[in-house]
Parts: sequence; C-alpha cells; structure tokens
Amino acid sequence: MYKYIAVLTDFGLKDPYVGVMKSVILNINPNVRIIDISHEIPSFSIKAAAYVLLAAKEYFPRNTIFLVVVDPGVGSRRRAIVIKTKKYVFVGPDNGVLYPVVSDDGIVEIRSIDNENLLLKPVSHTFHGRDVFAPIAALLSKGIALDVIGNNVEADNIVKLDLELIRLEEVDKGKTFCGEVIYIDKFGNIVLNIRASNYNTLPIGKLVEIKISNKVLKAYSAKTFSSVKPGDLALYINSFRFLELGVNMGDAAKRLNAHIGDRICLTVKDV
Amino acid sequence: MYKYIAVLTDFGLKDPYVGVMKSVILNINPNVRIIDISHEIPSFSIKAAAYVLLAAKEYFPRNTIFLVVVDPGVGSRRRAIVIKTKKYVFVGPDNGVLYPVVSDDGIVEIRSIDNENLLLKPVSHTFHGRDVFAPIAALLSKGIALDVIGNNVEADNIVKLDLELIRLEEVDKGKTFCGEVIYIDKFGNIVLNIRASNYNTLPIGKLVEIKISNKVLKAYSAKTFSSVKPGDLALYINSFRFLELGVNMGDAAKRLNAHIGDRICLTVKDV
Amino acid sequence: MYKYIAVLTDFGLKDPYVGVMKSVILNINPNVRIIDISHEIPSFSIKAAAYVLLAAKEYFPRNTIFLVVVDPGVGSRRRAIVIKTKKYVFVGPDNGVLYPVVSDDGIVEIRSIDNENLLLKPVSHTFHGRDVFAPIAALLSKGIALDVIGNNVEADNIVKLDLELIRLEEVDKGKTFCGEVIYIDKFGNIVLNIRASNYNTLPIGKLVEIKISNKVLKAYSAKTFSSVKPGDLALYINSFRFLELGVNMGDAAKRLNAHIGDRICLTVKDV
Repeated sequence: MYKYIAVLTDFGLKDPYVGVMKSVILNINPNVRIIDISHEIPSFSIKAAAYVLLAAKEYFPRNTIFLVVVDPGVGSRRRAIVIKTKKYVFVGPDNGVLYPVVSDDGIVEIRSIDNENLLLKPVSHTFHGRDVFAPIAALLSKGIALDVIGNNVEADNIVKLDLELIRLEEVDKGKTFCGEVIYIDKFGNIVLNIRASNYNTLPIGKLVEIKISNKVLKAYSAKTFSSVKPGDLALYINSFRFLELGVNMGDAAKRLNAHIGDRICLTVKDV
Repeated sequence: MYKYIAVLTDFGLKDPYVGVMKSVILNINPNVRIIDISHEIPSFSIKAAAYVLLAAKEYFPRNTIFLVVVDPGVGSRRRAIVIKTKKYVFVGPDNGVLYPVVSDDGIVEIRSIDNENLLLKPVSHTFHGRDVFAPIAALLSKGIALDVIGNNVEADNIVKLDLELIRLEEVDKGKTFCGEVIYIDKFGNIVLNIRASNYNTLPIGKLVEIKISNKVLKAYSAKTFSSVKPGDLALYINSFRFLELGVNMGDAAKRLNAHIGDRICLTVKDV
Repeated sequence: MYKYIAVLTDFGLKDPYVGVMKSVILNINPNVRIIDISHEIPSFSIKAAAYVLLAAKEYFPRNTIFLVVVDPGVGSRRRAIVIKTKKYVFVGPDNGVLYPVVSDDGIVEIRSIDNENLLLKPVSHTFHGRDVFAPIAALLSKGIALDVIGNNVEADNIVKLDLELIRLEEVDKGKTFCGEVIYIDKFGNIVLNIRASNYNTLPIGKLVEIKISNKVLKAYSAKTFSSVKPGDLALYINSFRFLELGVNMGDAAKRLNAHIGDRICLTVKDV
C-alpha cells in the first residue's frame, strides 16, 4: 500500500546524514522506494520547507509517506508526530513545518511518536532523522497501525505555522497590494505568499511597480520569465501556482536583494 | 525494454523540481529506474550539457531514455522533441542541447511532442520538465509508439549546436593549435573541444606553452594530472577522451581564470 | 546476498562522474540497489572520508558493499583493493581511506585488484571509479569470488591512516586535554578525534574553555547544541558518538575559524 517515502531535509548532501537515514529505512523495509524532494532547504528554515511541501505534494503518488526533517529544535522537548491526511502520511517534528501542507490536504488523524520500542536505540540528542523519523516512516511503509505509534493528538494541539497565504482572486489589482517572500529558488526567482487557483490568470504585459525596502523597480506581468526581454524583471504565476518575480536569464533575488521574510509591494500600472 | 531513465538538468538540488519530475515519472511507470546524471549544469548552459551528454552516453545501458531539461527558452515557442538514436532515446527541448550527442550516436527518428493528451494539465509556462518532458519519458519507458507522440521532424530541421569539435589526430602538434573551453569540472579541470580517439596518445613529458587571454603559462603533457608535481599544470587526455588541463592537487580553472567559451592556444615545445 | 552498494566519493554532483559510475554498476548488475553516502567529501580529503565511513558504517545493512573513491593518487602506482570485513565489503584505493573503518569492523581478507579482465577497457588514467572500482563492486554484488579479483594482501601491507582516535573514558576531564579536528559538517559543527562509547556521558552544564590557534572561547558541555542558548557554543557527544563543538542556530567552524587538522584544547572548569 505504501510504496514511496519522499524525503525533505535541511541536512545538505555533504555529510552522511541522508545516506544513513536511507540505510535505516532500507534495513526495515528493503522494498520501499525513496524519492528525494530536497536536502538543501536553508538550515532551520521551517518556512521554506513548508512552502516546498505545499508546492510539491500533489505531484507525488497517493499514499506517499513524507519524511520531513527540518528540525532546529532537535534534542529539545518538541514533539515528534505522524499526520495522516486524505491522500498522504507525514512524519516529522511538531514545529509547524507540516502545518500548511496537512491543512491543505485535510487532516485525518494525528499521532505523537511515543512508542520508544519502535526507535533506534540509544536515541541520540541530535539526529532524530535517523533514530526517530526514519524508522517510523519505514514502519509505516510496512503497514504498522497508527495507534501502535503513540497517542492521538487533536489538530488544535499541534504547532501552527501561518504562511499568511493570500488568494490571488482576493487581491485588488487596481491598487497596491503586498506580500511576503516565502521562497527563493536556485535561479533567484522570488516566490510570494500569494496563491492562484487553476483558473486565475494575470493580465499580461502590464507595467508593475515593485517596492522592496527602499528600492523601487519596474517589472512586467507576463506568462513567465522568458516572455520578457533578457535582463527584465517579470511578474508571473509560477508552476506551482504562486506569484513569482524572476529575471529572464538573470537572478531576481540578487537584483532586489531579497530574502525570505521580506515584504514586497506591487502596484499594477495601467499601460 | 526501457528500464532506465537518465536525467540531466540545470535545476540544482535545492528546489523540489527534480523530486517532482521523478514523482511524475513514477506515477506513470512505477517500475522504471531513474539515474541522475547531474542537476548542476551551470544555469542555461546548453554547451556544458551537450558536452556532458556526449561524454557520458556510452556508459549507459542500451535503450536508456535520456531526459534532458536545460531549457532557457521554456515558455517560448521552442519545440519539444523526442529523438531515437541507434542505441538510445532522448527527450528534451529543441535548442541544440541534444544535437551533438544524437549526431554522434546516429539519429534514427525525430518526433515533435505535439499530442497534448499525453501531458500534465494545465501545462505550466515555466516547468516543462514536469509537465511535458517527464510524462513523455515515462510513457516512452512503458513502450508508447513514437507516432503517438507527434509529427515526424526531419533531421535538417532541428536546432544545431556546433561544439566545433577538433579531432586530436588532425592537430599539428609541431605548431601552435587552439581550442575552446567547453566544460570545467568540479576540480577545476578544463576540458577543451579537442577529442581523441581510443588510439590517440599524447607524447608524455613535453613542455607545453598555454596561452589564454593575455596570460602565458607552462604545462607538461602527461598521462594525467597526478603524473606531474603537485601544483604543476598538466595537459592530458581525460577519461572521456577529450583534451584537458588540470593542476595536480589544485584548480586549473582558477589558475588560468578560465571560463566556458574561452579560447586557449597550446604550443608543444621540444625538450 | 549482496543487495546494496553504498557509494562515497569526492566527485561532487556537478559532473557526470557519479551518474556514470552508477550506469556501469547497473550494466553489470541491474538488481543491486545503490545508496549514496556522500559525494561532497572535500576534494582529496582522505581523513574526512575515513571519518564518514567510520561514523556511518554500522547503520548500513549487513553485507553492504562500500564503494569508496577518494583517490588523489589516481593514475599513480597506488594499489586498488577489496577488503572483506566481519559485516561488510569495502572497495577502494589503498591510500589509507579504508583503514580506520576496516580495522574497526575487523579485517577478514584483503585482495588487490589485479585481474584486468574484470575492468572497463581501456582503463583511463583519471577515472578508476568508473573503470576499476565500480565494475569490481558490481561483480562482488553478483557474488564473484574474492580470489578471482587478485592476490591476497596481508593486513600489515596496506596503507595505514591513523586518525589518532582518543577514547573519551581515557581523557582526564579534570585537566586540559587536546584533540584534532577530523570533520566539519554542513552546519559548521566541529568533530574531534575523541570517541565515546555507548556508555559514556558528559557532565552537563560545565563551563569549558576552548583553545584553538591563539583564540580562547567559552563553551558549555551539553546534551546537544540546542541545549544551550542560541549563539552559544556547546560541547557534546554527537550522534555518531564523537565529541563535537556546535553553536545553537549558528556555525561553530566560522566562529572558531576551524579547519580539518587543527588542534583544539579543552579545559573543563568546575562551576
């Protein structure tokens, strides 16, 4: 029933952490298939990880188990949890990183990871990815019942992370509207917390004034970054249906000196 | 018949792009095996990707499907294509990136990707790796017929990329000869567009004068970089049979301040 | 019997080297499963690779074949070897990188790789990972007998690498004791060559004076980095049971300007 474990961490690929987690999984279930989502989430950035999960999840096969280890509080008293949603299962720390994606998919059941018999012993203070989350994900992939893992947790009692998502259809594009940077990708494209439905489109070719810190820049609304001239700044709906700023053949985050958490205001000019 | 999909992109491993492409593939064909060639091609560098394909291809199992997404023109009108060659199948944008490798292997048939029923809907403007190329590669691995994918394209009508490859046996090593940098690897080794057959060798231990921009440096022809003294510059035939400059225990690209596209001239001195 | 090949290199993920090695393996044994330990070992750092193997090995399934290519002497006369230990098999260059892990696991048999019929031809001078080590690992995974690979080598005759490991129980924590930096992870945590058994603990909450080069800093002994205040330096036993210095939510290697090979002295102050 559970054929896939998708793994998201901020461990990087330099150290043996990810390989060791995979070994632990395969030691328990040699038949499961592991898909790497990313291991290069900026260190401790719960927000970036939450966006990535929200963006990526629907492309994964039904019943994929998501193993998420972005866990700045490892070794402290934060809870470890399993959340079953309508289509998936999520395993990770109860620090908010899972909150946006499980809310989006629909929470069915939450368990705290209490049963120490299921963990790698001795449980280290710094590597719960290996000792707690990987074995639980592997056991889930073999079909272990949720109630063996630990106590039921009410949805109200898990840690919330509010990405303050704005729906594009609620934005009054005749006026200035503002959003927050929730992700910057490898190309320097800047993702805002403004989400479009499958039916939303942007009016194309409009001049848009971009305000960030004390800078004011000009962008053009477009289908995508390659629709504007090389070097120009484009505003478009990205492939995961979030509003994004990019530079054709360039790096928007460097151009705007933008960082996760920055506030950006947009004014569509009629041209 | 098609057991492997080998993936080459410039997406990097920071973002969820590669993981999402793999999910799309496994959703369509859970039995195919995916091999990563690289996802760290310099952004938009069609030339570097073309070299990597040319260098790597012969080591892949016969019938491997190569899924290549180095695609600066995504969202513009560039064509998406499938090329069957004597030993392999290639899927990617028609921007020249596939041209050197398919010419080398021998083109059998080319199809443009026209059948929108095969694609992920809605097709985004920025992520054809996920919406166009991954599903086509996965369907090919399940044995879909080429004529279902789209119209036949004549070999003359695809975009050409000329790496201006020079054959080593045609170089007059008594005189100065020049080449172009087509790749720089992680160790800083510099690959030139001069290709040796399996029978070519370099005379070993010769002094070679290297000219790049206004710099003149000394190198020694050698079996490999570790044949010269630590810190010395070596000229040798690399493991993919291209002429390469490397520094033993060092970084040749930094030493020469070399970049892809730079012209380098070599003069073998008799010693 | 051999289901897994675990791969550790300093090749990076930018170039096609790792993908090509995997292709060579799958061409020989399509049924083996490949686990990446890391490909981002600092270039030529035999010490870092030796630590990673020592730290990671016990988490891998019994009979895993470790394919290790950290090989600054490739192309020179260094020997290529296979070492069978009590639980595993190791394939790599005879340059010391395998020595700490095979000594730890218990050497059963050593063979030099002499049988050229088993290798990819022509064997290149620069890429024995592809031409020598990958085919041997793949053939081992198919059950080839050790005596077909090459001559027996006495354990005394392989190259030794001494990490000068210190056992924590032998350290006199009442006085100043010194160690050497053997690894720095992605988070900037600094691993010392001081190893704790499963029974060792550190007294918690002690003030520890850290001396490196001419710097003197204060740290606190702790269960882990997140047990101290954000920005504070912590001394703790890491998840692989080595003594480690880390900064909560920060980068200890930058704070101390520490590098592999540096000497660090610690004085536990009674508070």
